[in-house]
Amino acid sequence: MKKIAVDAMGGDNAPQAIVEGVNQALAAFKDIEIQLYGDEAKIKDYLTATERVSIIHTDEKINSDDEPAKAIRRKKKASMVLGAQAVKEGSADAVISAGNTGALLAAGLFVVGRIKGVDRPGLMSTMPTADGKGFDMLDLGANAENTAAHLHQYAILGSFYAKNVRGLANPRVGLLNNGTEDTKGDPLRKETYALLAADSSLNFVGNVEARELMNNVADVIVADGFTGNAVLKTMEGTALTIMGTLKSSIKKGGLKAKLGALLLKDSLYSLRDSMDYSSAGGAVLFGLKAPVVKCHGSSDAKAVFHTIKQVRTMLETNVVGQLVEEFTPKDSE
Amino acid sequence: MKKIAVDAMGGDNAPQAIVEGVNQALAAFKDIEIQLYGDEAKIKDYLTATERVSIIHTDEKINSDDEPAKAIRRKKKASMVLGAQAVKEGSADAVISAGNTGALLAAGLFVVGRIKGVDRPGLMSTMPTADGKGFDMLDLGANAENTAAHLHQYAILGSFYAKNVRGLANPRVGLLNNGTEDTKGDPLRKETYALLAADSSLNFVGNVEARELMNNVADVIVADGFTGNAVLKTMEGTALTIMGTLKSSIKKGGLKAKLGALLLKDSLYSLRDSMDYSSAGGAVLFGLKAPVVKCHGSSDAKAVFHTIKQVRTMLETNVVGQLVEEFTPKDSE
Repeated sequence: MKKIAVDAMGGDNAPQAIVEGVNQALAAFKDIEIQLYGDEAKIKDYLTATERVSIIHTDEKINSDDEPAKAIRRKKKASMVLGAQAVKEGSADAVISAGNTGALLAAGLFVVGRIKGVDRPGLMSTMPTADGKGFDMLDLGANAENTAAHLHQYAILGSFYAKNVRGLANPRVGLLNNGTEDTKGDPLRKETYALLAADSSLNFVGNVEARELMNNVADVIVADGFTGNAVLKTMEGTALTIMGTLKSSIKKGGLKAKLGALLLKDSLYSLRDSMDYSSAGGAVLFGLKAPVVKCHGSSDAKAVFHTIKQVRTMLETNVVGQLVEEFTPKDSE
Repeated sequence: MKKIAVDAMGGDNAPQAIVEGVNQALAAFKDIEIQLYGDEAKIKDYLTATERVSIIHTDEKINSDDEPAKAIRRKKKASMVLGAQAVKEGSADAVISAGNTGALLAAGLFVVGRIKGVDRPGLMSTMPTADGKGFDMLDLGANAENTAAHLHQYAILGSFYAKNVRGLANPRVGLLNNGTEDTKGDPLRKETYALLAADSSLNFVGNVEARELMNNVADVIVADGFTGNAVLKTMEGTALTIMGTLKSSIKKGGLKAKLGALLLKDSLYSLRDSMDYSSAGGAVLFGLKAPVVKCHGSSDAKAVFHTIKQVRTMLETNVVGQLVEEFTPKDSE
């Protein structure tokens, strides 16, 4: 039985969306057990599942504007912290939250803890491509600064995830850079390029420019946390702006435009769905001793369901256990 | 009379689009004179203007796949190099090319030369916002690495441009960062933040996240060249992917979708136009002794026209001369 701790109180639509996602997941997967951390009365309003589910009541929760590290230290009984604590103590195998990202990162690092040998766990997410296949990118902002050794570790981490969780046999690893030629980039990129090219365990395909990210040029994209964060947020901002502009342009276009939009409904929905990658699950703080996964703050029940499904796959394939093995120094060599 | 050197042979649609843009600009602006560098016979096929225009013939040109620094050194008679040389010698006031970006940057730095006091000229472009107002961002990739002192100079350069060329009285300057709080970022961002906040000549509005760039949160955005390049290319890639997905989704949607698209034509065009910022001109390698401006490689005649218009405004407002003044050490102080 896979035991998953879920912060019922984090995110814009908590606890309703969280609990409804849990109901769906419990119905779909018979090999999981969910621990819901949060306000018992509010959780019960939405909980329909009766088996393999428990509620651990707490009044405390971390708000979206709390200062992350401080919140983790001071709010010891917060739903998110109790979930991480359960993982640390072994009563849960993984923890999920849609709450304050910084706080979840801090809880992951300071409560759950790093895999020995992974210097700086990275935030990783599966992002959309035009052909629907997606790619995993890290670090998306767990760190403000990274060294080439960190980026090399991200290549290994991302490859393990793509292999085990996404089922790709030989994932292509690309390095986000300011040009595709081998010699491109700042010293960090040049040093990283050399490390990745020399590691025969990786299927390194070279430098990738940000313009090509959505064209399925690699399965894993390695970036420092500062740049990865900027790229992620630019993608989100650009997509939101375009969709918003199209919407308001249809509104202003009068009856003709509205009729057109009605006829185009299926195409517009399929466009929206192709940009919506919540079915790929949440963002993993990868490199920790157990899966710690962040759902988007605006997650609905479907996104929560898919994140639980993702965590279940991570537990089933024991991707974290394999990473521990990978990063354990091999004395006999 | 403002004398503008134009590389007639650079870009995907050269020389036709270049020369047609020149025809339009000469008709619209009576105070400009254009020097066209390139293949005389080919240029003459499209040149309809007869006044204030001259052709300087050369057989040599820089190709899009030439190694930039090498090309500048070896192809001394290339149309782009001759244009830059004319600026250096004072026979032209500015140079425009739609050719190899790296080569134009090299020609700008090594032929035209830096303003004394500007350490690393930055590539700057006006980028789209949802409300159509746009923002100027630099460095977009002229440099792979920058210091806080460079970023401080970019804030000054961008403000001068926004004031003089875009006519904004008190341009808001934002620092691209991984969060909006004052304390966010890596050491480079923290150091830059302190420099910008301490400079009372700037209207510094603080940190800006990439997600908000298109929401008119600042008039000038300061970034290091590596991150700026990644953000620019992510915006382009995301917009292209979304528009392409919408197009193919309409195609696959059959008659109903096609009828809908027909009715929505105006809205779709207005969406496309709002993302197309070619009317704001080209990308300026800013911090040089004269305007050196890159048109997009795929520029049509309209984009070339708008770039000439932009250069004309830069010359009329003497923004570069003012920068020289600004960066001259003031001994009397």
